[in-house]
Amino acid sequence: MIVAVCLNPAVDVTYTVDALRPGASHRVGSVRRRAGGKGVNVAAVLHQQQVPALVTGPVGGSAGDELTADLAAAGIDHRFSAIAGATRQTVTVVAADQATVLNEPGPELTADEWRAFTTFFADTIRDASVVTLSGSLPRGVRPTAYAELITLAREHHTVVVLDCDGPALTAALPTAPHLLKINHHEAAAATGTDTSTVDGCVAAAHALHQLGAVEVVITRGADGVVARTTAGCFLGTDHDTVSGNPTGAGDAFTAGLAAATADGAPWPARLRQASAWAAAAVAMPVAGQLDPRTAQHHLTTTVVEELAP
Amino acid sequence: MIVAVCLNPAVDVTYTVDALRPGASHRVGSVRRRAGGKGVNVAAVLHQQQVPALVTGPVGGSAGDELTADLAAAGIDHRFSAIAGATRQTVTVVAADQATVLNEPGPELTADEWRAFTTFFADTIRDASVVTLSGSLPRGVRPTAYAELITLAREHHTVVVLDCDGPALTAALPTAPHLLKINHHEAAAATGTDTSTVDGCVAAAHALHQLGAVEVVITRGADGVVARTTAGCFLGTDHDTVSGNPTGAGDAFTAGLAAATADGAPWPARLRQASAWAAAAVAMPVAGQLDPRTAQHHLTTTVVEELAP
Repeated sequence: MIVAVCLNPAVDVTYTVDALRPGASHRVGSVRRRAGGKGVNVAAVLHQQQVPALVTGPVGGSAGDELTADLAAAGIDHRFSAIAGATRQTVTVVAADQATVLNEPGPELTADEWRAFTTFFADTIRDASVVTLSGSLPRGVRPTAYAELITLAREHHTVVVLDCDGPALTAALPTAPHLLKINHHEAAAATGTDTSTVDGCVAAAHALHQLGAVEVVITRGADGVVARTTAGCFLGTDHDTVSGNPTGAGDAFTAGLAAATADGAPWPARLRQASAWAAAAVAMPVAGQLDPRTAQHHLTTTVVEELAP
Repeated sequence: MIVAVCLNPAVDVTYTVDALRPGASHRVGSVRRRAGGKGVNVAAVLHQQQVPALVTGPVGGSAGDELTADLAAAGIDHRFSAIAGATRQTVTVVAADQATVLNEPGPELTADEWRAFTTFFADTIRDASVVTLSGSLPRGVRPTAYAELITLAREHHTVVVLDCDGPALTAALPTAPHLLKINHHEAAAATGTDTSTVDGCVAAAHALHQLGAVEVVITRGADGVVARTTAGCFLGTDHDTVSGNPTGAGDAFTAGLAAATADGAPWPARLRQASAWAAAAVAMPVAGQLDPRTAQHHLTTTVVEELAP
């Protein structure tokens, strides 16, 4: 079983308007509300691909109730700890091809709530082979929050796939996360390396390994993926293209990587599956969904080659 | 007791951002959420002025739960009927002095839900001396919705204060609402009269009386109020000015008018109280609130004179 951690989940609200005019009053055409947040997207993709998974995190308020109800309606397993603050919402205003996003900061956790969550987390991952840690930290927790969860996962012999950046990443690296998945922009920021080339990504992956990550996967958008693993360095390239909405593609990549890792697949197969799921997510308009036929197709168009050490 | 009807209540969400840039992603600074909708504002003002009142309407979904909880926390009496659809939210994005508003359409009521509400309404107004009907109609109900409620109120000998425009107003006038309160823009649209002058407002009030309204009050923003009543025509003028946020001032006016009507006050006093409460609402940054000292002051600065018939 895979546990997807979402420390700052959200109700994602999407409005359509004719045009967004600052200072004006707008009639919203359509309203869509759904459970969101990177960890929720990971669990949703795993659920869609029939991989046993559950999502966990802290929720509160009526938005927390709505998020939980939305996951229940979709059949996505979840196990949340209750907090006093209210779960955030994000509002995306879509006008023609333009999307304007308003991200609420989300609730602030108390020290007691964070302590309660770590105990809850240790219990939740009891039967998990892999745990994913994705996205930003909520207010009120220290940058070492992911580091604490990685230490607990190691005690439970659960493999960690980490997808975060900034201070949370910096604080997590010394705890030697099993598998770090970040994009090339985040890798550049974390290492000061120019990651615009394959060689640059390889250098950044080596640097992140030196900083503590056992294995490192750096995604390069449509240009593929670079991995620095205990089985060698790999370059994954998709020989077909896909157009659509890249939002949530990174979460689908994490889901594919986690699922293949749980299956004990060798590295080339892990990268092929992760890349194919990401491509299949781009083909869908909504984050947390993928098109299974597109995933199947991109398994055959993604080529993974070993790089010289 | 006064019953404030709110057929399309909302959770009003206010975001502050540095600047709203269409197409960009924004970190929201502060988030404020509160029960809203014109009828909710009327009840909130009455509650603040210690006038016995309750708000009624159809609510649903987690936003409906939140709205109910917010009113309960504020001590505002409420009695809502449950619907399957979810109560809407409005999002106001405030950047410096600029406010951008996104109004969700709100839930669509089924014919059964509307029928159930009318029964519920008849029961709710049993002990009410005055009922206010404010704001737009929800989707799914006919334009005659207010006309149906006015007929029920008449059967229960409850005085109606109606504040609406467009087709809902057109359909309501033949049922002879006791007291119509609209602003001069709405009066112009309903009658085709130029309401930019006092004489124009008097003519529009006469026309609305001819169309069915027993008594008519037309508000003119900072320029005061014109009333065509069974006791004569009146002009109310505030000799002091107030600056601030006019959102919700109309609802405070309705609340003041309803409260003075319930008290059996004569017309000049009714108009003075309504005008003073509206001025006191302008002085507050949030709709549904007023500053009692400002209200007290404007009772003394508002002069009501009788106009020649």
